[in-house]
Amino acid sequence: MTSSLTSGGIRDAARFLEGRVRRTPVEPSAKLSERLGVPVWLKLECLQVTGSFKVRGAFVRMAELSDAERRVGIATCSAGNHGKGVAYVARQLGVPARIFVPKTVDESKYRGMLALGAEVIRSEFIGYDDTEAWAREEASKSGRTFLSAFDDDAIMAGNGGSLAVEVLDDLPEARTFVLPVGGGGLSAGFALYAEEERPGSTIVGCQLEASPALQLSLERGEAVTRLPPVETAAGGLEGGIGRRTFEILKSHVDAVALITEAEIVDATRWMLAEHQYLVEPSAAVTVAACLTGKVGRVTSPAAVVLSGRNVSLETLQRILR
Amino acid sequence: MTSSLTSGGIRDAARFLEGRVRRTPVEPSAKLSERLGVPVWLKLECLQVTGSFKVRGAFVRMAELSDAERRVGIATCSAGNHGKGVAYVARQLGVPARIFVPKTVDESKYRGMLALGAEVIRSEFIGYDDTEAWAREEASKSGRTFLSAFDDDAIMAGNGGSLAVEVLDDLPEARTFVLPVGGGGLSAGFALYAEEERPGSTIVGCQLEASPALQLSLERGEAVTRLPPVETAAGGLEGGIGRRTFEILKSHVDAVALITEAEIVDATRWMLAEHQYLVEPSAAVTVAACLTGKVGRVTSPAAVVLSGRNVSLETLQRILR
Repeated sequence: MTSSLTSGGIRDAARFLEGRVRRTPVEPSAKLSERLGVPVWLKLECLQVTGSFKVRGAFVRMAELSDAERRVGIATCSAGNHGKGVAYVARQLGVPARIFVPKTVDESKYRGMLALGAEVIRSEFIGYDDTEAWAREEASKSGRTFLSAFDDDAIMAGNGGSLAVEVLDDLPEARTFVLPVGGGGLSAGFALYAEEERPGSTIVGCQLEASPALQLSLERGEAVTRLPPVETAAGGLEGGIGRRTFEILKSHVDAVALITEAEIVDATRWMLAEHQYLVEPSAAVTVAACLTGKVGRVTSPAAVVLSGRNVSLETLQRILR
Repeated sequence: MTSSLTSGGIRDAARFLEGRVRRTPVEPSAKLSERLGVPVWLKLECLQVTGSFKVRGAFVRMAELSDAERRVGIATCSAGNHGKGVAYVARQLGVPARIFVPKTVDESKYRGMLALGAEVIRSEFIGYDDTEAWAREEASKSGRTFLSAFDDDAIMAGNGGSLAVEVLDDLPEARTFVLPVGGGGLSAGFALYAEEERPGSTIVGCQLEASPALQLSLERGEAVTRLPPVETAAGGLEGGIGRRTFEILKSHVDAVALITEAEIVDATRWMLAEHQYLVEPSAAVTVAACLTGKVGRVTSPAAVVLSGRNVSLETLQRILR
């Protein structure tokens, strides 16, 4: 398939993914509904195969590879989830995959990529942005196709767009969408589809306070594509935003919630206590926005996206201590 | 609907549940496949609404209530999961529900039942069996219909039977089924359907070593319906077995694996580390049987049922310490 970043293209991507990934459920949250004063549902994308939404974009993007590109193989850079998604799809398609990861990669994600048969190369860099710059150079030398983790139409259509198709189908009343923002692939694809299908929807982007690329980009009027590395359990939220994703986000995002590390840890614990799901800290950022009130005043039924569950036992033990 | 404990009746129950409960996914386990030397899949019933399989039987059983019975309301006894399932269904059907729980009920389950609007009454007894005897007396005094948590055809068809329909549909090759055994509702319904549809299947029942009602019943040739309470994080596995469930299990179970508390705790941790799902200790018993080798020699592709995820944060913290 060839995907395009339009409502129709996104629906095509969603159809293409049927039977290839899980259709994850939505679940009402009584506690969050009470807190926000509107009906609130959780989109449990944390239950996706490979442990996160990233497998959606990987399928859509890799379906576009030519035979020649498949033979040579692909390279990518990932803090973990995109890498697991790519490794999963690469194995199904028989495409050699080389994945560059930051030195600080989460152990569970690292082992997950290896278990899926990918070649995983740890960089000397602790941040995502430096690792990606190096990975692009290495990919170019080897002749492999480099797959962006977010700044790519197929990735946006798969990661965020197809997710939005499911959420809008399952929740006809929802008009507020609370989304995690890292590189922007999920949020841009989701926001684009939601705004086209439900004009006037409210989109809240949730970021790590210590790595607020979207907030900074909105202030400066241009994409902040690189940020210094920060120490966080929410690696998926760290680093700069994509140029293409920012082009979409700047006209679709209504508010940005900046969440601290402590608030993310609390929300991860809250999800275990209240809904009995393991979510990773990067995913808990949206729940944290609701629990802290940083989501702002919510005036319409809300869908809160939980993007993944890949967290190492060591990190979980630290969170629960 | 009226259900009956035959292949056809079980398929009717499964159809009745479509759209009422989640169709939970199966997922291959590379590590367990390697360990047992056969393909192994996990049936992720831990992702069910209300956090366990018990909502299946509750729906099937409560659909059989007469209008008069619905008006007066129902009573039941539960260590937690059955109670949550009953409370969920009762709210949907507008039936008053009174749930008797042991003094030692898991806090997360207790709060879950209350949040679903049920009347929850803590008994003076620490074990399940004593609580149930008292609950039956109280129900009889109040004129409410008492719903057995397991020793009932509709419950068996819903809890175990409909689960087996899904597993057999999704895994055409599976011939070994590793099941948790508490009162026997899940295992009896599952075993009956699996044996009728795939004669010669191997059924392994997994129990708490400290509360081995099935093992004792097989040795004595009659149902051991009451056992002294034991201290365990796996409350769903504690207590005696049903008379009706044992009638079925005695001719369908090929082996019983007796698992210790420490092995259950390890398996709960293993599920978080390897598959990133929160499961409750009672559910981890089947994985523990595989990890310890107590499942015995497995010679055909295996499905391992994970029955629930309802565990309090306090218990989880203790497990991860």
